[in-house]
Amino acid sequence: MALCRSFARLLCKQADAGLQLTKQAHSVALVGAPLSRGQKRRGVDHGPATLRAAGLVERLAGLGCQVYDFGDLNFTQVPNDELYNNLILYPRSVGLASQVLADTVSRAVAAGHSCVTLGGDHSLALGSVSGHARQCPHLGVIWVDAHADINTPLTTQSGSLHGQPLSFLLRELQDKVPQLPGFSWLKPCLSASDIVYIGLRDVDPAEYYILKNYDIQYFSMRDIDRLGIQKVMERTFEQLMGRRQRPIHLSFDIDAFDPSLAPATGTPVLGGLTYREGMYLTEEIHNTGMLSAVDMVEVNPLLGASPEEVNATASLAVDVIATCFGQTREGAHTAFDELPTPSSPDESDSEEQVRI
Amino acid sequence: MALCRSFARLLCKQADAGLQLTKQAHSVALVGAPLSRGQKRRGVDHGPATLRAAGLVERLAGLGCQVYDFGDLNFTQVPNDELYNNLILYPRSVGLASQVLADTVSRAVAAGHSCVTLGGDHSLALGSVSGHARQCPHLGVIWVDAHADINTPLTTQSGSLHGQPLSFLLRELQDKVPQLPGFSWLKPCLSASDIVYIGLRDVDPAEYYILKNYDIQYFSMRDIDRLGIQKVMERTFEQLMGRRQRPIHLSFDIDAFDPSLAPATGTPVLGGLTYREGMYLTEEIHNTGMLSAVDMVEVNPLLGASPEEVNATASLAVDVIATCFGQTREGAHTAFDELPTPSSPDESDSEEQVRI
Amino acid sequence: MALCRSFARLLCKQADAGLQLTKQAHSVALVGAPLSRGQKRRGVDHGPATLRAAGLVERLAGLGCQVYDFGDLNFTQVPNDELYNNLILYPRSVGLASQVLADTVSRAVAAGHSCVTLGGDHSLALGSVSGHARQCPHLGVIWVDAHADINTPLTTQSGSLHGQPLSFLLRELQDKVPQLPGFSWLKPCLSASDIVYIGLRDVDPAEYYILKNYDIQYFSMRDIDRLGIQKVMERTFEQLMGRRQRPIHLSFDIDAFDPSLAPATGTPVLGGLTYREGMYLTEEIHNTGMLSAVDMVEVNPLLGASPEEVNATASLAVDVIATCFGQTREGAHTAFDELPTPSSPDESDSEEQVRI
Repeated sequence: MALCRSFARLLCKQADAGLQLTKQAHSVALVGAPLSRGQKRRGVDHGPATLRAAGLVERLAGLGCQVYDFGDLNFTQVPNDELYNNLILYPRSVGLASQVLADTVSRAVAAGHSCVTLGGDHSLALGSVSGHARQCPHLGVIWVDAHADINTPLTTQSGSLHGQPLSFLLRELQDKVPQLPGFSWLKPCLSASDIVYIGLRDVDPAEYYILKNYDIQYFSMRDIDRLGIQKVMERTFEQLMGRRQRPIHLSFDIDAFDPSLAPATGTPVLGGLTYREGMYLTEEIHNTGMLSAVDMVEVNPLLGASPEEVNATASLAVDVIATCFGQTREGAHTAFDELPTPSSPDESDSEEQVRI
Repeated sequence: MALCRSFARLLCKQADAGLQLTKQAHSVALVGAPLSRGQKRRGVDHGPATLRAAGLVERLAGLGCQVYDFGDLNFTQVPNDELYNNLILYPRSVGLASQVLADTVSRAVAAGHSCVTLGGDHSLALGSVSGHARQCPHLGVIWVDAHADINTPLTTQSGSLHGQPLSFLLRELQDKVPQLPGFSWLKPCLSASDIVYIGLRDVDPAEYYILKNYDIQYFSMRDIDRLGIQKVMERTFEQLMGRRQRPIHLSFDIDAFDPSLAPATGTPVLGGLTYREGMYLTEEIHNTGMLSAVDMVEVNPLLGASPEEVNATASLAVDVIATCFGQTREGAHTAFDELPTPSSPDESDSEEQVRI
Repeated sequence: MALCRSFARLLCKQADAGLQLTKQAHSVALVGAPLSRGQKRRGVDHGPATLRAAGLVERLAGLGCQVYDFGDLNFTQVPNDELYNNLILYPRSVGLASQVLADTVSRAVAAGHSCVTLGGDHSLALGSVSGHARQCPHLGVIWVDAHADINTPLTTQSGSLHGQPLSFLLRELQDKVPQLPGFSWLKPCLSASDIVYIGLRDVDPAEYYILKNYDIQYFSMRDIDRLGIQKVMERTFEQLMGRRQRPIHLSFDIDAFDPSLAPATGTPVLGGLTYREGMYLTEEIHNTGMLSAVDMVEVNPLLGASPEEVNATASLAVDVIATCFGQTREGAHTAFDELPTPSSPDESDSEEQVRI
């Protein structure tokens, strides 16, 4: 926790001083989290391998990041993992995997890295946010997703835990959330005001009730249409960092993008983010200088209709992560101190001049 | 007419009181209008069946609407329906079908329903707008379309009546419009200030002349690019309801959407509405609480290059209609009064807790 | 030069007087420039033929333009055109072709035409801008492109001259640019403040250094996301014409568009202009009344994955050029003075009226 605080202090000082660090060497930990028991479709456990195959490590290295690859965690399935309440799927397996992930993320952040968790389904945020919060208790979460993922085990229709992680993480909801087998390690670490959603467009009635009654800030696709992505990001930072700078946890579900861009995912919904909105959003988060952990979830290579669809989805995810760590559309901000000048006399051979 | 006035009064009162009716049960009449003689391409008469097959009735029912399905009207072709003026196609057939539709729409509105007419080509608006106006003489029309559909029989190049309905409906144009065989029943019911166009991008010179000289409010794709869809809707409502609330007739040609989204239509034009703009526009119209009739026209299942293209087009049309009646991207606003609370003692079996 | 000045004066006067020339007959010279030696991929020399086959001449004629087709220039490859500095490809061939093009563009502008150069690769701007500037020394350049094309021969990584033309044209950079064989005819004719970029999203470090240190105005895709295309165009004209009107040279690389719209090009980059942004941008430039020369470059028919992709790319390029010369989405602004009125008595045969 000490490390995270000094990290935040350092960044705050930079922000206060208006410093523009054009070449800050990020130290990035990659953690593969092939968790798939939070939902029902096969293949999302291949997400980490798919993101690596799309060149993630090389891209980060090319941006000047020091990449520490923790490899993929080994999530053993818990035997006899029966339904909870005749509905909730694999509570013990998801709980255990999240616990392992939480420990890993916590260690990575404690070691001074920005931690990127490669999913896997979105129930892994139980672990990544918990682990991050262990080091950075005052973090803020930007949850980019088509879905709100905040059903409780008592309101979920599907029974899948990837639609519920935020209900377990939110302090205000704890009297509404039963203790699941496998979840005893988990302590809620977020308040309603610590979260901002971006990209919502498929929200269940109970979720809508929670968003409204617990006063959670969200920007649905309708809000993005109304305000534009520029104002949405302004208000996001105002909500999370209006009073003080704080470490940011970006939890990015690839289904936030439009299905035409990210088809290889389990629960696509029409009318999502454009490529440019996704890049703008991530550029802005990077520019705060406060990004401290990232989840990239729900890339499922078995759900693309063709290799092209899988590649497009994975490549988009890699673009998001690379932009988190300094990739820009305006030009690589690597050091470039002086333009070379031709040697004198003229480098060209004047006898060679072509005349017509 | 009495019914419509009390409907409008009721809605006006709600609007004045700032009431938010989160769960208003819409009563929706569906009228299939398989009219195809207003244009030249085969297949648009299969539009109503295509929209039903895409799940329209179920979607409306799922939103809590009471759906009264009037079935498809039986449009008999008038024999010996020769060209008018050596140019205008099928005037008697289009005139008769529109007359039948007008009667049906009028009855449906009089019975207190919101009336949805499923096209068929856009010449059917001759009937749907006339029938609606019979009950609601002060209605305003929002015409969402790539085309202005306001040629007169003397300016049309194609001779197709689906490019001309508004010239017959507009009072100010009556000295420019000859009486067509089959049209004697039709009385113009709109003034130039009662119409707002959205989505125009293929306007004939004579149409442009009419828009400009009769001071008709329009928002072309260029205007949407310039202002954004949010301001366009603001100005639309200012034009139509700036002084007082009034019933709205939404006449939606699916070709308003970009051809990449709605390929199965007769006269696609590049550079149309995005999915999100279409949803935003319709959400805003729903939110006025004044929507009283809808046309959904020009879905032609024979013009898709593949079943996927037809499905995408039909599904888009269903999304527009569902949004007209309360579907939102922010979450279903069905009643949800309280979150369930876990029973005490804890619902979970504590012996089952997994420890590592 | 005299001609151009009087042209500019004329236009300035019109602008001052607020005249709206709805039907100005443009006189357009078409110059095919099948230059391909500025880059490495085969096929871009077929660009002019592809644009003509897509109906360019007919479209311009249909807008009321007088089209003077200069045909395609015959660019002979210079023999023994060895690498310059072991890196720069075909300097003599590119230099000679550009010289020939400069002479042609200069003659066309001197003759009072707006000159459209059909590429070929973007190194041809060496010639088209030089030739244009010979007649209009105070021109401003709007460079629409995914790339900045301003590497010097000493900073380029690829060695391809199509990534370098602006470094040769910019006065401020001349001490950084060696004299290449074949380039002795070329005199820099632009200052840093004469250029505005639109659409950048792949900028090399040295290019970024130049943009920043020489204070060149650019609007990257990020800026378009942030400001919207409407404000971007406002600021573009403020930069170029804030103090006085001046002739505009539009140098349009088709790769400014998103690859989903313009796939048949050599260096596509994700996240480009939408169709609508491209049309809006070009409409705005046309509306200034100051457009005097256009380059349309990098359409490469050998790089489409299908005939459809080639056609879409070429058709998009034709739309841009047509919009440069008056095509609008609001309706053809051809003269239309009066609506025809039905003859009296009624043109329709009243006996034919259908009654039901």
